[in-house]
Amino acid sequence: MGKRILIIGGVAGGASVAARARRIDEEADIIMFEKGPHVSFSNCALPFHLSGMVENGDDLVLMCPTQFKNQYNIEARVNSEVIKIIREDKKVVVKNLLTGGEYEESYDKLVLSPGANPILPRSIEGVTGSNVFTVRNVVDIKKLKNYIDSNNIKDIAVVGGGFIGVEVAENLCLADKNVSLIEALDQIMNPFDYDMAQILHKEMMDKGVNLILSDGVKKIDEDFVELQSGKKVAAKVVVMAIGVSPETGLAKDAGLEIGVTGGIKVDHNYLTNDKDIYAVGDAIEVYNRLTHKTSRLALAGPAQRQARAAADNMYNIHHNNNGVIGSSVVQVFDLGAASTGLNEKTAKAAGISYDFVYIIPGDKVGLMPDSNPMHFKLIYEYPTGRILGAQAIGKGNVDKRIDVIATMITMGGTLENLKELELCYAPLFGTAKDVVNFAALVGLNLLYGKFRQVPVTIVRELVEKDEFIVDVREKHEYEQGHLKNSVNIPLSEIRERMSEIPKYKPVYLHCRSSQRSYNAVMALQNSGYDNVINISGSYLGICCYEYYQDQVTGRAKIVTEYNFN
Amino acid sequence: MGKRILIIGGVAGGASVAARARRIDEEADIIMFEKGPHVSFSNCALPFHLSGMVENGDDLVLMCPTQFKNQYNIEARVNSEVIKIIREDKKVVVKNLLTGGEYEESYDKLVLSPGANPILPRSIEGVTGSNVFTVRNVVDIKKLKNYIDSNNIKDIAVVGGGFIGVEVAENLCLADKNVSLIEALDQIMNPFDYDMAQILHKEMMDKGVNLILSDGVKKIDEDFVELQSGKKVAAKVVVMAIGVSPETGLAKDAGLEIGVTGGIKVDHNYLTNDKDIYAVGDAIEVYNRLTHKTSRLALAGPAQRQARAAADNMYNIHHNNNGVIGSSVVQVFDLGAASTGLNEKTAKAAGISYDFVYIIPGDKVGLMPDSNPMHFKLIYEYPTGRILGAQAIGKGNVDKRIDVIATMITMGGTLENLKELELCYAPLFGTAKDVVNFAALVGLNLLYGKFRQVPVTIVRELVEKDEFIVDVREKHEYEQGHLKNSVNIPLSEIRERMSEIPKYKPVYLHCRSSQRSYNAVMALQNSGYDNVINISGSYLGICCYEYYQDQVTGRAKIVTEYNFN
Repeated sequence: MGKRILIIGGVAGGASVAARARRIDEEADIIMFEKGPHVSFSNCALPFHLSGMVENGDDLVLMCPTQFKNQYNIEARVNSEVIKIIREDKKVVVKNLLTGGEYEESYDKLVLSPGANPILPRSIEGVTGSNVFTVRNVVDIKKLKNYIDSNNIKDIAVVGGGFIGVEVAENLCLADKNVSLIEALDQIMNPFDYDMAQILHKEMMDKGVNLILSDGVKKIDEDFVELQSGKKVAAKVVVMAIGVSPETGLAKDAGLEIGVTGGIKVDHNYLTNDKDIYAVGDAIEVYNRLTHKTSRLALAGPAQRQARAAADNMYNIHHNNNGVIGSSVVQVFDLGAASTGLNEKTAKAAGISYDFVYIIPGDKVGLMPDSNPMHFKLIYEYPTGRILGAQAIGKGNVDKRIDVIATMITMGGTLENLKELELCYAPLFGTAKDVVNFAALVGLNLLYGKFRQVPVTIVRELVEKDEFIVDVREKHEYEQGHLKNSVNIPLSEIRERMSEIPKYKPVYLHCRSSQRSYNAVMALQNSGYDNVINISGSYLGICCYEYYQDQVTGRAKIVTEYNFN
Repeated sequence: MGKRILIIGGVAGGASVAARARRIDEEADIIMFEKGPHVSFSNCALPFHLSGMVENGDDLVLMCPTQFKNQYNIEARVNSEVIKIIREDKKVVVKNLLTGGEYEESYDKLVLSPGANPILPRSIEGVTGSNVFTVRNVVDIKKLKNYIDSNNIKDIAVVGGGFIGVEVAENLCLADKNVSLIEALDQIMNPFDYDMAQILHKEMMDKGVNLILSDGVKKIDEDFVELQSGKKVAAKVVVMAIGVSPETGLAKDAGLEIGVTGGIKVDHNYLTNDKDIYAVGDAIEVYNRLTHKTSRLALAGPAQRQARAAADNMYNIHHNNNGVIGSSVVQVFDLGAASTGLNEKTAKAAGISYDFVYIIPGDKVGLMPDSNPMHFKLIYEYPTGRILGAQAIGKGNVDKRIDVIATMITMGGTLENLKELELCYAPLFGTAKDVVNFAALVGLNLLYGKFRQVPVTIVRELVEKDEFIVDVREKHEYEQGHLKNSVNIPLSEIRERMSEIPKYKPVYLHCRSSQRSYNAVMALQNSGYDNVINISGSYLGICCYEYYQDQVTGRAKIVTEYNFN
């Protein structure tokens, strides 16, 4: 008789364990229990139903129980909640949510893949109201869409600026709703540093999202949301997306160990402290190979990998557990935004010595249609040059650049390796020296002490202190907008006008994307200037960075003349 | 006084040496000699002028001599041909092509970046005619476009199916010309294996290109081209793009060493056998790190890297020379086609033990708009699993996948490493298990002997021998077209209909993309079948592979019922 494998949760992790086990073992009894009415739906695609990009909500369900049965001989029991694990008897108690009946099933191996629940803080008045929604599954998203459509709702508040919040806000906006996105922190999209997040803030605002940062929700009423600041935001529907909490109730009740991060603790083989119970997916805590600490990571790729590894382990098939680095991408209107590994915040928090590069090269040859600047930030270990992470935002192929960096991180690559990468090039696809090569070259120049930079975050301070700033763009570019009090000496005139630049004090340089200013920095340094500093991020970066200040507070006008576009 | 650096050739390699030297040394005298009227033009973008994608031919020139002077203090002398190198005096003789005057210039360091010339075989009658063109520079492409426009030419033959030939043919097609593409080999685009090239052949034919393979040009007349086969092809203009030959005349005359491949021989530092003369770009031979042999590689990325290294070496700055792997990408109408490292042909030629995977997964989540299959072939060393190369063709993000593989090759990655790569995922960008992860999983299953495959290239033979082939797609898919004599047992029925499958002889399985057939293979194997074989490439691959046979020879009808779309 075959092995009896029970799986709690029938989405990404659970379904992957089941399918993998079946490919290994034709004899196994495999049963998945899912408390909702659907197994194997595409969680990541849920928000796209709101814009109609996925027109039919039922299409989000990828396979029904009958297909599982026919194609894989896997039994998928929906509307079936496992309410107890009896470890000593190797049994679970299952409740049929349609009939209310309860029954027991025994297992040889049990897999927990219960996922994570949207957090709904009870401290918010009105959070249990019928106009408040969360987005976890197909039922949720259809309910939300149906409510909006049938009540002809226009004003919607989305609370939380993570992946789900941003995607929900965007898709509602594309459906022509008035959307407010409310985030308690000073930035959306935590995988990005504050400077890079400003580019996303600008895009959200440009596309008409009412973006509210650094403010929390106090109360939800029928027609509005009241914020901590006292401000009121019109909203007849509120989508709560402030984060998720791992479903650990069953595990806790069964005496399974919970990690410091609140996720189920697992070993190399994704086994809990019970040698017959595995756990995978959003409910567990994972090991971050860069910080050397455990963390939680609600991403589909790692969940599938864990699922496969758990199934393999049941059959003594070797697998690797390399920990995670965390790679992700999101579409924010016209921009792709991808990241991998550490950012400045997480590197700092982990006490890792780092430096970074922020460049804005073209994503393809400038002559080609749809050539656009790409904002690219690369984090590396100082002084070893080991690649730690990257963030890319732009209209072009951001995921390509981040996948290359993710590969470098996994393979232990350094700036020297990255500089040498021989990537595929044609004018429609990139530049002969790709974005990532270029970032490595700039990084090496910094690492080797060839030149110095300051981040875009301190430009306001430089302007306010009336530091000597040279804008090396051409005159017509300068005239369309520039930093207050900056001096315009185009790169093409820098040698003949060098006497206008003082030697006795720091000189800061920038151009549009910092390629020309880098050449100017080298020309000055090689002419005896020893206090010349490049502004990382340059004018394109500065404008994105100061945009929110300009739109919301008007403070950016203190820094720049003219507008930001 | 500064170093005196003379550079022969002012395009990719030459201009990069000059700019890099200037960034290192403000004092150097830097002079570039270019025999044509332009320096620093975008060679790779030349064909796009023919379709009007680059409307103004002059836009292809990225920087004029005045800009070089003003921005970099580099003297760019156009219409200036270096006709002799006098090594013993460290001088060159320059001919001013406008005045005819000759003069000498002395150097401390000389850099040869003369590029390569299109090959025009004198054996072809009429090859020197005024209706025969090549595409090397801005003058060429403007002349060609002007000739076509002013004579209102419709019928054009492009000879040679490499990068330039394919891009020229496509751009002329987009300009609504009747284009014949003539290639003497049995496939276009040499970086791709024969099986993968069929996908490109199909695309070219589908888009209306008159594709002629395995036939050479014998004679060029005013109105037609006569082929070796005797066939005549209507053409009032012929573009010759059969290959390039490195410009080594100057180097040979000066007694510089030429390598076995016909390119200028250089050392680690891109120095010739004269310690003051460097050579970079299309004229040199490079070291391939995978075959451990020298080869020629006319690509912009490596040229720029060589240029930087040469400039660095003049100033005793360390650089790496890792050899090349050869990464490239090209747009072929709706398809991107990218490749890196070795293919089957080059692996065989180098005597390297290899195996391969050919899969056709979705490039993004199927629910998303513009989700399409991607043809992906991965070559790895057998039995080590070290990644050697890959080819990707599809409407989606092929360059992303190939860049990841290029990174893996450079970092010495194996299938195990590739399987574990944590790449960024969202439904609009890919799938949770990316194309490259999926290829690694299939590769490992092969490497570890978990299942066997046959290539798409032998399907015709299987059909003709009346082997037992099971098509595990659903009935409605089967009915739209299938292999002759194949038996339709959908995956969803395979367990109940297993008795229809014989145990005493080989059983070949396929589905649409080979995901379902892989599951069927495992189900059969785990049920006691020991001679079950998956067809790599599956039905989508088979259809592309047999399409040319169908269109040109009608022979595919012997293999398949119904049509290919």
